[in-house]
Amino acid sequence: MNKSSTVTVRPSLPAVSTAGGLIVQAEALELQTTERVELVDLTDQIRDVLRRSQVREGIASLWSMHTTCALFINEVQSALHADIQRFFEQLVAQNGEWMHNDPAHSDCDRMNADAHLRAMILGHSLTLQVTGGAVVLGTWQRVLAAEMDGPRTRTIRVQLMGIG
Amino acid sequence: MNKSSTVTVRPSLPAVSTAGGLIVQAEALELQTTERVELVDLTDQIRDVLRRSQVREGIASLWSMHTTCALFINEVQSALHADIQRFFEQLVAQNGEWMHNDPAHSDCDRMNADAHLRAMILGHSLTLQVTGGAVVLGTWQRVLAAEMDGPRTRTIRVQLMGIG
Amino acid sequence: MNKSSTVTVRPSLPAVSTAGGLIVQAEALELQTTERVELVDLTDQIRDVLRRSQVREGIASLWSMHTTCALFINEVQSALHADIQRFFEQLVAQNGEWMHNDPAHSDCDRMNADAHLRAMILGHSLTLQVTGGAVVLGTWQRVLAAEMDGPRTRTIRVQLMGIG
Repeated sequence: MNKSSTVTVRPSLPAVSTAGGLIVQAEALELQTTERVELVDLTDQIRDVLRRSQVREGIASLWSMHTTCALFINEVQSALHADIQRFFEQLVAQNGEWMHNDPAHSDCDRMNADAHLRAMILGHSLTLQVTGGAVVLGTWQRVLAAEMDGPRTRTIRVQLMGIG
Repeated sequence: MNKSSTVTVRPSLPAVSTAGGLIVQAEALELQTTERVELVDLTDQIRDVLRRSQVREGIASLWSMHTTCALFINEVQSALHADIQRFFEQLVAQNGEWMHNDPAHSDCDRMNADAHLRAMILGHSLTLQVTGGAVVLGTWQRVLAAEMDGPRTRTIRVQLMGIG
Repeated sequence: MNKSSTVTVRPSLPAVSTAGGLIVQAEALELQTTERVELVDLTDQIRDVLRRSQVREGIASLWSMHTTCALFINEVQSALHADIQRFFEQLVAQNGEWMHNDPAHSDCDRMNADAHLRAMILGHSLTLQVTGGAVVLGTWQRVLAAEMDGPRTRTIRVQLMGIG
C-alpha cells in the first residue's frame, strides 16, 4: 500500500434494518488512491466496520462502486504486489489498440480500456463470512482493493447481514 | 448487446419462503443468445425481479446454470465490449490444442474448451447488495452475462434474501 | 481429481446460531492434496454438509482459508482439467522472474509467486444458492478447489445461512 493512500469511513449511510432477529446494515469506505495502479489493504477498516456493528454471525458483502477498481484476496507483501502489478501490465497492455481508447469509437476520454479489463479479471465484489463478530480470513489473507485507473476517490460499500 | 438477444422471466420457480421476517425467493431469467460469443446486459431484468419482490434490504445472488456462460460487472459500451471479446480471443485461443476438443480424450462434441476457460476467468455468479428494494450499482456498473458458447438458451437464477 | 486426494470434515466448528427463524452454521472441509497443482471436486462433500444442516432456503458460502488455494465452478472431466492446468502454466510461468521468489526482496521460501497469481485469477470464495436443502448447480457444474502450491492440507470453510 502506498504510504499516502488513505481510507476513511463515510458516516452517511442508512440506519440499521432489523426483522425477527435478522440485521442488515451498511457503511461506505472511502478510499483516496495516489497512483494510477495501486493495491490497498482494506482489512483493518473492514474489521472496524464489524466492530461498530451488531452482526456476530452472518456475511459481509464488499462492493466496489466503480468499474475500474476491483476487490480481491491476497497476501500483503510489497514484492508480491509488484509481481501482481507487473502481471497485469503484461496481460493487458495499457497502450494496446483498444477501441474504448479510440475517439472514433468511444466518448471515454480516460483512455482506460486496460483498467476495465484488469478489474474485470479480479472482480468487483467479495462476500466474506462473519463469525464471532469478525470476518473469517486465513493467516495470510488480506482484503485488497486494486486501483486500476487512479489516482481517484473510490467508494467501497460494506453491507453486513446476519444475527446479532 | 446483440439486438436480437432476448431475456425473459420464467415464472415456474417455487414460492416465497419466510421465517421471522427473513424472506427468501427466487426467479429464473431465461436468455436467448444469438452469437457464439456475446455480452448481454441483464441489469434491467434484475431490477424488475427486485420490483416484483418484497425484499428491501439484503442480497441478490445471480447464478448462471451453465459452465460456459459467465456473469460479471462492467460498463455497457459497444467499443469496450469489442475490446473484451478481443481480449478473450487472444488470451484463450478457440483453436488451441485443447484436450477437451480432442475426440481421443473427450466425449464432448461442442469443441468448446475455450468457452470453459474464458467463463472460468470471469466466474459464474455474482452476489449483489440490495437496499431500498433495489440493487446497489455504481454509476457505470451494469450486470453482464458473457455467452461464450452460443447461440444457446441460458438460465440465470436470481435469488433474493433479506428483510421486507 | 487425483485418486489419492482426500476430503474430510472437521467437526470442530461452533454450534448453530439462530434468531427468529434465521439459521447460521458452519463446518470446515479438510482437504489433503497430493500434487503441486491439482483440481479437487468438492461437490459431494458440500452436499453432505447441506444434508446434515437444517438450512433449506438460503445461501452457502465457501471460503478457502489460503492465498494459494482457489475455488471455482466448472465441469469435471480429466481432459478439461488438463487444459485448465496447462492454461495456467502458460499464463503465469512458475519460473518467471517474480520478486516474491527472490530472497533479495522476499522472505517467502516457498517460491510460489505463480501460485498466488493463479489463485488470484480464480478467486478464493464462492457464494452458492440453497433451495430445498440442496445447493443450486447446473447439469455440468461442479464445485472445484484449485490447489496451486501443494501438496498441502487445506481448509475450506462452509457457512450456511437461511431458513430451516
